[in-house]
Amino acid sequence: MRLGTESTRSLRAAADGRSFAILDQTVLPWRLVWLTIGTAEGAAHAIRSMQVRGAPLIGAVGAYGLALALRADPSDAALEAAHAMLAATRPTAINLRWALDRVRDAVRNQPHGARAAIAWRVAGAICDDDVATCEAIGRHGLPLLEEIAARKRRGARVNVLTHCNAGWLATVDWGTATAPIYMAHDAGIPVHVWVDETRPRNQGAALTAFELGNHGVPHTIIADNAGGHLMQRGEVDIVIVGTDRVTRTGDVANKIGTYLKALAARDTGVPFWVALPHSTIDWSVRDGLAEIPIEERGAEEVTQITGLGTDGAVTRVRVANPGSAASNPAFDVTPARLVTGLITERGRCAASEAGLLGLYPERA
Amino acid sequence: MRLGTESTRSLRAAADGRSFAILDQTVLPWRLVWLTIGTAEGAAHAIRSMQVRGAPLIGAVGAYGLALALRADPSDAALEAAHAMLAATRPTAINLRWALDRVRDAVRNQPHGARAAIAWRVAGAICDDDVATCEAIGRHGLPLLEEIAARKRRGARVNVLTHCNAGWLATVDWGTATAPIYMAHDAGIPVHVWVDETRPRNQGAALTAFELGNHGVPHTIIADNAGGHLMQRGEVDIVIVGTDRVTRTGDVANKIGTYLKALAARDTGVPFWVALPHSTIDWSVRDGLAEIPIEERGAEEVTQITGLGTDGAVTRVRVANPGSAASNPAFDVTPARLVTGLITERGRCAASEAGLLGLYPERA
Repeated sequence: MRLGTESTRSLRAAADGRSFAILDQTVLPWRLVWLTIGTAEGAAHAIRSMQVRGAPLIGAVGAYGLALALRADPSDAALEAAHAMLAATRPTAINLRWALDRVRDAVRNQPHGARAAIAWRVAGAICDDDVATCEAIGRHGLPLLEEIAARKRRGARVNVLTHCNAGWLATVDWGTATAPIYMAHDAGIPVHVWVDETRPRNQGAALTAFELGNHGVPHTIIADNAGGHLMQRGEVDIVIVGTDRVTRTGDVANKIGTYLKALAARDTGVPFWVALPHSTIDWSVRDGLAEIPIEERGAEEVTQITGLGTDGAVTRVRVANPGSAASNPAFDVTPARLVTGLITERGRCAASEAGLLGLYPERA
Repeated sequence: MRLGTESTRSLRAAADGRSFAILDQTVLPWRLVWLTIGTAEGAAHAIRSMQVRGAPLIGAVGAYGLALALRADPSDAALEAAHAMLAATRPTAINLRWALDRVRDAVRNQPHGARAAIAWRVAGAICDDDVATCEAIGRHGLPLLEEIAARKRRGARVNVLTHCNAGWLATVDWGTATAPIYMAHDAGIPVHVWVDETRPRNQGAALTAFELGNHGVPHTIIADNAGGHLMQRGEVDIVIVGTDRVTRTGDVANKIGTYLKALAARDTGVPFWVALPHSTIDWSVRDGLAEIPIEERGAEEVTQITGLGTDGAVTRVRVANPGSAASNPAFDVTPARLVTGLITERGRCAASEAGLLGLYPERA
């Protein structure tokens, strides 16, 4: 997507196969810093410190990290050590382990001298695959926005509401929930995005708004509290969100607060769509509410907030009454009954087992 | 309510009738500053600068301000000028004008020499009436919490969720939504409050948490996004909120985001109650969604946030992507169909015209 005057992915591999660069997301949107990473340790640090985030991007960074480890030492022992070290950076991100395994499997029976180059190519393929997947999600989501535009008077804006960041900063390019939005914008549809701030980590106000602004997509940041009111007033035509895990039956785990928007969408007749790659589907889970564990994160994410001070420094301030406890569940589960449909790289379907099996018959 | 080791109202009138003191709410919860106000201009400034907020408290401050004006100059001209000056500080707060009128009506036909003392007594009566009203709301709401406690095993906590600040800082004492909570706590019911942060102005995290903490009521601050998830998990027994305006038919205008909590309460079977004095009922409005205008406040409330810096100074930081627009509707309307019931100073009733007329037959 566009970033300033250039077009970029969230990860740039060097032509010589010796390093790659990532955008430091811990200082976005305040500073635009490309970090060059030349070692597996550097890749691990980038994941651990949340300089990169988003399951697909973490997977890509892990894969490149493993390739860099093999360039330093292509032995089996080094391969296993680097794999273990990188896998441990974020144990719950399913894409990370999958990407690391893919690299390891590709080099395992290859001569040591060829391993680094092969691994580098596989890491590149992982990125390309992710881009293709997101692009396909965008293609399958685009008609939803085209239909809304066609129903409106010519030039009237198409209002999308999204929550958190399921954008290109979380993937390699396009994003998931944002892919149809970018495609619609590029196709000349006057799309406008209501960006939920997404407390407590503010991924919407900081990252999604940054992405959309750089690509030139009109957007407005709102408090998470405001979405229901906007839907009541007819100011939202469609909700599109990403997801961290979708059950076999279509229940959707996503950033905390998603469920509230799904309820408001249902109450006001606004379509509520969820965009996802197949790798997000957990075919082993049938009941999202009962079976998906919800991560409880640190209270300080609620009681403190990071922003840009008047002196231009990135600073942290306390925003809650000192001495008060805080609770910070990071995700919630939106029951399938509230989801209008799913947008995957294979097409759209109902949020149900039948719907998902229609697109993924091999899982029946 | 309790504040540190003492018990206090949010407004303290001096015995000599020459000044009153208020808590400066612009620096809460970071600093506990009592401001002494000795002139009508000082009262107007306190309202204008939001050192005091909450319709009932604003009314009381206005009344005392008018009494102070009469002490300086008891003439008819001075009375009218001070009334106009104070009324203009916050033109939409209905309680303010009502309180000013009550003082003016009481002194109008009295000798100049007696006016200041009469006005001072009327201002005191306005405060006492507000306290009595809130106390009655508490008495009528208390049984709801007692019933929940009775259904649970002995000692199990009764979980209340509230949004924004409808506490004693917004009134003279007790608050509206918080009155049943304080009474339940004082009666030994193990009440625990989930305090919605209430973006963008954070009245929950800053003021409600401050109040509850000082009174010793167990509470936990949560992001506004978290309430639905907690209700899904059975962690909320009842929602109690205040309101800025209730229609004749029971629609409820309240702080932005209230509607989302009402939806979640309905979806999960959690009772959703609204506490209010009769002065909040707008008997002239039947359709809240169509007829209640929603104030759009400044975008900077969304894009910037005030907190306590690491250096101990109260500071403002930017939390949104620079260059992105923000929208800030301050209230939303919860349709009566989502409201379990209303708690007023006359008792509880259904959120409907029939329910309200049952308590206020004089409005039929």
